[in-house]
Amino acid sequence: MTTRDECLALDASDPFAGLRDEFLLREGEIYLDGNSLGPVSKSVQRRVAEVIDTEWAQGLVRSWNAAGWMDAPLRLGHRLAPLIGAREGEVLVADSLTFLLAKIIGGSLELKTERHVVITDAVNFHSDLYIVAAMARLAGRDIVVKNIDRDTLREHLDEDVALVMLTHVDFRTGEMLDLAGITADVHAVGALMLWDFAHSAGAVPLDVTGADVDFAAGCGYKYLNGGPGAPAFMYVAPRWHGVLRNPLPGWLGHARPFDFEPTYESAPGMRAYVTSSPSVIALGALEGALDVWDRTTMAEVRVKSLALTDLFISLVEEALPGVFELVTPREHSRRGSQVAIRHDQGYGVVQALIDRGVIGDFRAPDICRFGFTPLYLRYVDVYDAVRILVDVMTTSAYLDESFAVRLAVT
Amino acid sequence: MTTRDECLALDASDPFAGLRDEFLLREGEIYLDGNSLGPVSKSVQRRVAEVIDTEWAQGLVRSWNAAGWMDAPLRLGHRLAPLIGAREGEVLVADSLTFLLAKIIGGSLELKTERHVVITDAVNFHSDLYIVAAMARLAGRDIVVKNIDRDTLREHLDEDVALVMLTHVDFRTGEMLDLAGITADVHAVGALMLWDFAHSAGAVPLDVTGADVDFAAGCGYKYLNGGPGAPAFMYVAPRWHGVLRNPLPGWLGHARPFDFEPTYESAPGMRAYVTSSPSVIALGALEGALDVWDRTTMAEVRVKSLALTDLFISLVEEALPGVFELVTPREHSRRGSQVAIRHDQGYGVVQALIDRGVIGDFRAPDICRFGFTPLYLRYVDVYDAVRILVDVMTTSAYLDESFAVRLAVT
Repeated sequence: MTTRDECLALDASDPFAGLRDEFLLREGEIYLDGNSLGPVSKSVQRRVAEVIDTEWAQGLVRSWNAAGWMDAPLRLGHRLAPLIGAREGEVLVADSLTFLLAKIIGGSLELKTERHVVITDAVNFHSDLYIVAAMARLAGRDIVVKNIDRDTLREHLDEDVALVMLTHVDFRTGEMLDLAGITADVHAVGALMLWDFAHSAGAVPLDVTGADVDFAAGCGYKYLNGGPGAPAFMYVAPRWHGVLRNPLPGWLGHARPFDFEPTYESAPGMRAYVTSSPSVIALGALEGALDVWDRTTMAEVRVKSLALTDLFISLVEEALPGVFELVTPREHSRRGSQVAIRHDQGYGVVQALIDRGVIGDFRAPDICRFGFTPLYLRYVDVYDAVRILVDVMTTSAYLDESFAVRLAVT
Repeated sequence: MTTRDECLALDASDPFAGLRDEFLLREGEIYLDGNSLGPVSKSVQRRVAEVIDTEWAQGLVRSWNAAGWMDAPLRLGHRLAPLIGAREGEVLVADSLTFLLAKIIGGSLELKTERHVVITDAVNFHSDLYIVAAMARLAGRDIVVKNIDRDTLREHLDEDVALVMLTHVDFRTGEMLDLAGITADVHAVGALMLWDFAHSAGAVPLDVTGADVDFAAGCGYKYLNGGPGAPAFMYVAPRWHGVLRNPLPGWLGHARPFDFEPTYESAPGMRAYVTSSPSVIALGALEGALDVWDRTTMAEVRVKSLALTDLFISLVEEALPGVFELVTPREHSRRGSQVAIRHDQGYGVVQALIDRGVIGDFRAPDICRFGFTPLYLRYVDVYDAVRILVDVMTTSAYLDESFAVRLAVT
């Protein structure tokens, strides 16, 4: 099995080695929760200070134009676009993921008025389930939302389906779905496809253009490292620009915002989906976080992500055989950038790990969830995390003492 | 008329003198646009740095609980409540004003399903007009939105009115409406009253409890100084807690957010109106800004606000008689914390003032708008602003040369 020295050697030749210095990480802590909240980068600190101390303090109200605040939702969208395979003018950064989903779902249901079914995943993130139900209700007609087992999607696809909304990487299991294949299946019955990229953006390569995706949205605070509750992003395929209506409009999405017209007339392109004045400081944090992404590509990220998750899986299975059930798919093509392992004492295991400086998280009822983020995570971190996991499992009350002698990691 | 020395004397004895030092203001500039975007306070810088450098960088994902991020929308609501005459547990800080209005309007229309009319002000801020139209459309039944002349409100009130939404202080004219009187008129026909406090919170004393207001919402970036696009606030009278449904729900408003339940069940109280993970950095900026408000009361603010607007009006009228038409009401009971004056060359006047360091703004077609913010504005600033206005009007092409000799301010 891989040794600690081998991990150190991998780190020494890692093209990401320089990027780790961009992040503020606590000495002696191994952060495996970047899939929940990414850490602070120096570029975030710099950009937020610039927004507050210069643009706001010095420019004051003039900065809406002079510092480009008005255009920030689109400017950040342009910068984020390459991470999801979109082109300039197809991505917007604003609001929160739930509101952006609401806009897309609400708009979609107006495009398919002759259809009555919306399909989503029964184990989707619960906010997604709540907002799809809410927007179906607000559609003001007879819409049925089906929360299905996603593996049975094809059985549910027919000419009455208006919209399918799936999360591309499952937040619990880390399973990655087939972006292009499912989108094609959905299109085959004339339905629209909306992907939630909360656990995909910055985690895995995405190609909304190649996969012919209609709509997508994701959040900025996980793998993108934009800060707690960072603004979200949305993608609308160019064929729907000017067609998909924003059901929650505001003055900044008006064709002529400063004409103060009493009737809403949508701006062209992605600007149509802007509602209010953006939170400039929050956008500044995300903009700073995106600086780091300029220094790599998602293809490079994916190579190291798979190496890290492979390493974690193999170390855990070799050191603690049969102790955990691997929940995340072993096949690369079905794996996001996290590993979920199941244990009936999972809650206690995660707490014990956190006490020893290995930060993962727990998802009820029994999932220990670990995110692997190539920008700042080292191979040796994975090794040390597993060593600490072994220590937790063997010195705590989880396993009987005799188990320890079989351990290869010491 | 008031002299510059008298203004300096007023400033010397001003109880707000110490607060001005809390703000980062540009040397030689007079900022009369705090009604559009308030300036940076040192407490904002401190609090944002604390959120990023300590809570986020050190605490990482743990800070959702350890640093109280989960409760930030309610914690900030509690701190803001006294500014609008609300009590603890009645105010929430989140999202943007438009989304909070959407929640209230959408929820209200479900409470009055037998009624078909929503009334608003034809000259309301345009985002308000767009979102009330949008939510009426999403109500899925035959709702008529009437954009009326607000002075004719009583003529439009009858048993078919579900909701009246008015902005308490007109963003163009600075006219303040009768909070308690109008609310009572609306209640007399059994309708609900929603007030937009965008230009009221931190500008004038408000008493939602005394006025028996049903719902209110406002933004954090004007007189409250919470930063560009700061989170907004909403008030729901306790009689509607558990009754007014949130039509745009999310996981953080669920009764048990960490149980990941597939069906939405609203949390009690104001938490029901939280949708998503809040933008913690943006909330941090607003929280820092609220520190300043702990050092004064709205009663004190009002006294100085009226003194400043009175001074501005009298100096302009004495120095430039007949040049501008006063748009803002002269009666204190009908005046917010801004003064709007009309001139057919208003756009050029405002630009010339900005060039000379007096920052006001222009609202089409002919309104020069000046905000007066007691926390950091001095009497001498008002005097100097008018002196510069006179200079602009007499040395520029706006007036003929002979006018200058009549000027009292030199």
